[in-house]
Amino acid sequence: MSADDQAIRQAIDRWMKASAAGDLDAVLSLMTDDVVFMTPGREPFGKNQFAESSRAMTALKVEGESNPVEIKVLGDWAYVRNHITVKVTPKAGGETRTRTGYTLTIFSRQPDGRWLLARDANLLT
Amino acid sequence: MSADDQAIRQAIDRWMKASAAGDLDAVLSLMTDDVVFMTPGREPFGKNQFAESSRAMTALKVEGESNPVEIKVLGDWAYVRNHITVKVTPKAGGETRTRTGYTLTIFSRQPDGRWLLARDANLLT
Repeated sequence: MSADDQAIRQAIDRWMKASAAGDLDAVLSLMTDDVVFMTPGREPFGKNQFAESSRAMTALKVEGESNPVEIKVLGDWAYVRNHITVKVTPKAGGETRTRTGYTLTIFSRQPDGRWLLARDANLLT
Repeated sequence: MSADDQAIRQAIDRWMKASAAGDLDAVLSLMTDDVVFMTPGREPFGKNQFAESSRAMTALKVEGESNPVEIKVLGDWAYVRNHITVKVTPKAGGETRTRTGYTLTIFSRQPDGRWLLARDANLLT
């Protein structure tokens, strides 16, 4: 596995851990400022809307498991196909809802070497 | 608009026209052999399965309109965010069903200069 592959896997792991910890600032630091999130049945949205949606979910515990099935580095860019399972549970107690599926994600390498999420198509159902 | 942008737009236009004409061979010639299609609620699938699904739809007229909202060329690769409307009508007559939404698509430039579709996440609903 190349150093870039490893760095991208680490960025994904950090994202998952920060999400599970409810550390929104850490999650936001892992995406570009012009990031675009694409999900079925909704207009694409950016960083501010991601933050707003996350803040509206503070009553929920979000635990994700990520299994990258393809990482292709293209110079300072990369695409990743990722299989993801997300479990969402009300912190006050209640039923856990599980969503599973794939993402197609574009990462962008910054001048300082960090790989940030730049575009994301989320196909989880 | 760069020559690459134009060539990618032309590949998308060709795809849409070949689909509408039911010319499966032409559509297949516009994707790489290792292409991966990703759709919600289904395992990713490749060229053979795409061809099978298309052959199973010969009783349907499929008309698509494509409006690329972002084309980013990354050397011999590119990603495209595309807004697509697909209208499916039984050739024997019947109601037209319309699906609309975005795709995130990876194109790959071949040694002969052609841009082929390599990865596609389809978020149409």
